[in-house]
Amino acid sequence: MKKTLQELFGALSRNFPDIPFEVRFWDGQTETYGNGSTAFTLTLKTGTAARRCLGDGTLGFREEYVAGNIDVDGNLQQLIRLGVDPRFRNAKLSPGARLAIFLQHIRSLNTMTKSPGNISHHYDLGDKFYRYYLDESMTYSCAYFRSEEDTLEQAQQQKYEHICRKLQLKEGETLVDIGCGWGGMLLYAARHYGVKGLGCTLSPHQAQYARTRVAAEGLERHITISLEDYRNMKGRFDKFVSIGMFEHVGKGFIPAFMDKAKGLLKPGGTGLLHTIGKELDTAEDSWTMKYIFPGGYLPVLDHVIRTMGERGLVPVDVENLRLHYVRTLNEWTKRFEANAQEIRKMFDDGFVRMWRMYLNGSAASFRWGDIRLYQILFTNGLNNSLPMTREHLYQT
Amino acid sequence: MKKTLQELFGALSRNFPDIPFEVRFWDGQTETYGNGSTAFTLTLKTGTAARRCLGDGTLGFREEYVAGNIDVDGNLQQLIRLGVDPRFRNAKLSPGARLAIFLQHIRSLNTMTKSPGNISHHYDLGDKFYRYYLDESMTYSCAYFRSEEDTLEQAQQQKYEHICRKLQLKEGETLVDIGCGWGGMLLYAARHYGVKGLGCTLSPHQAQYARTRVAAEGLERHITISLEDYRNMKGRFDKFVSIGMFEHVGKGFIPAFMDKAKGLLKPGGTGLLHTIGKELDTAEDSWTMKYIFPGGYLPVLDHVIRTMGERGLVPVDVENLRLHYVRTLNEWTKRFEANAQEIRKMFDDGFVRMWRMYLNGSAASFRWGDIRLYQILFTNGLNNSLPMTREHLYQT
Repeated sequence: MKKTLQELFGALSRNFPDIPFEVRFWDGQTETYGNGSTAFTLTLKTGTAARRCLGDGTLGFREEYVAGNIDVDGNLQQLIRLGVDPRFRNAKLSPGARLAIFLQHIRSLNTMTKSPGNISHHYDLGDKFYRYYLDESMTYSCAYFRSEEDTLEQAQQQKYEHICRKLQLKEGETLVDIGCGWGGMLLYAARHYGVKGLGCTLSPHQAQYARTRVAAEGLERHITISLEDYRNMKGRFDKFVSIGMFEHVGKGFIPAFMDKAKGLLKPGGTGLLHTIGKELDTAEDSWTMKYIFPGGYLPVLDHVIRTMGERGLVPVDVENLRLHYVRTLNEWTKRFEANAQEIRKMFDDGFVRMWRMYLNGSAASFRWGDIRLYQILFTNGLNNSLPMTREHLYQT
Repeated sequence: MKKTLQELFGALSRNFPDIPFEVRFWDGQTETYGNGSTAFTLTLKTGTAARRCLGDGTLGFREEYVAGNIDVDGNLQQLIRLGVDPRFRNAKLSPGARLAIFLQHIRSLNTMTKSPGNISHHYDLGDKFYRYYLDESMTYSCAYFRSEEDTLEQAQQQKYEHICRKLQLKEGETLVDIGCGWGGMLLYAARHYGVKGLGCTLSPHQAQYARTRVAAEGLERHITISLEDYRNMKGRFDKFVSIGMFEHVGKGFIPAFMDKAKGLLKPGGTGLLHTIGKELDTAEDSWTMKYIFPGGYLPVLDHVIRTMGERGLVPVDVENLRLHYVRTLNEWTKRFEANAQEIRKMFDDGFVRMWRMYLNGSAASFRWGDIRLYQILFTNGLNNSLPMTREHLYQT
């Protein structure tokens, strides 16, 4: 098996000559791949851990890392880069691992009864935990950086502003926010644009937190937070927004989501979908699906566009912001590592390693892999009163 | 049959109460539909013409209009609007008409031997003719209007500037232009950005005209015009552009087009596809396919995106400029009508009626129907050096 591993590392090194690295094997041997100062050192502490990397691919590697049987010193993202490159990703999965992933998918299908559990798994880890690495507005989605100097706090507010401009929000308009999280979007829109907003979330923690903030700002007559499945939402709104929630919808429910978007929007109304997605319907990352986002599914751009078109939802602007998510995740990682001690006390070392892997793995996949961040602006039927150009998004 | 027509007009009128109109039947009877001042008067001069409207839908109506058996006074676009609305479009096609359209499609398949004929059909009508309604730069595609006051001339130059900015053209870079027309894009890019450009067209008229302009500006060392099928183009370029040519590619050749785009672009290079398209794969307008653009096919956005993704061409920005095409077509129509006398002398009255129908029909379909103008910016593989925002497109 060691020989197979050495062959694999050799092949990786030949494909990425710009990333020299070092491997320490369980028998004490150390090997260097590539030339120059190494980007990282990978330590395979046991033969079993090494075997799982070969047999179960990314899933095995990440599980063994979390268990502490594998260590990485140096640049973790450069190591993950080797794995997220389309040429190597999921290529070494054994039939058994493929079956396990398939069963995991089945178990995570987002039926109405299972969705609350899937959402709680992630979002009810506790507001205190998320405060350790999110910005002060508790925004848990890709930020929008306008310059090198922007802080994460600024970039999250700029994201909301960018979306408000795309939606052309006007005072007194109604806005529905599907998956409102801790309420950041609605608070911004009410504060700066005077809209009346209704948001929904399936996380009791988020709903409670959002309501507290709404009350603290005296915006109860402007914002309503509903602890509700999006499929139960009712009403007709001028504008529609959904930020970082679509990833939880699941492939089979994308048509239902679009039916709901169409039903909630007045004719000619404008909507914005902000979501992670891909160009190709490749297999989901099995580790992330198992440990981080059960029931998650990264939508495929052409499928989203088609499902919109079939319902007369007309795309008017699609922006790919993937490099903004790299920077957002790097900001989160910095804060996360600064608070790792505290987080370890809340949970344990395995949790810290798991979350570190999730944040760095995501950053690497946005930067070098196959995932993107799309903002899709659309109208419900044709709207001939839209601004002719996008200049208004960039006026100061 | 008259009764059927009256029922049809009644149904249309109920669906479009904001468009009152008048119909003069072949037996002398006149009927008014809707209330208020009429948008147009439709005169059905013969029973045969009326029968063809019922039996062959849009195809029959437009053919009979061109033949002079149907007249329209007033706002032609408002009349066409009734036909391009998805609820009525192509709904009344007889099985015979459907078969005719199918055969027409087969005859127009863009094989290598047939493409020159299909392109000549339209583009070799003579530069003199196109000068009667295009702007002075001879740009035969959607312009980009930044303000109410912009002239067509300005808007066409602004379109080129918008594309150059999207492509981030830099001095000394190489640019390939698939379907370069009369050379407008390459001339602009060489003049303002100092690029080295290679363009191809299948129209001998266009190639000759473009070369003359290149020579007149002394840009022979910057621009090469090749009378060549795009499938024969060779080389590796920094940037790729194709404006208003993709509509001639045909559905079955979209993968070949994308293979070529990928092959012509350096890794990480940027390309822009400017094309008419649709969200839904509805039947093509049979009249336009038969008389205006044989072999034409309006691509479907999700199919284009998917075909790109399958080849590692990554969409980074999609802009829907359909309202700009309405305005462009209205500008062309104005110039066309001002020169109708001269054009009638060049061809005949039937030609004038045909072209009038084509220009107004297109404008109506962009404004109220199912066609769009997409600008799709993409990179060949990932490019992590792109600007983070689109602000640079709008700086003055």
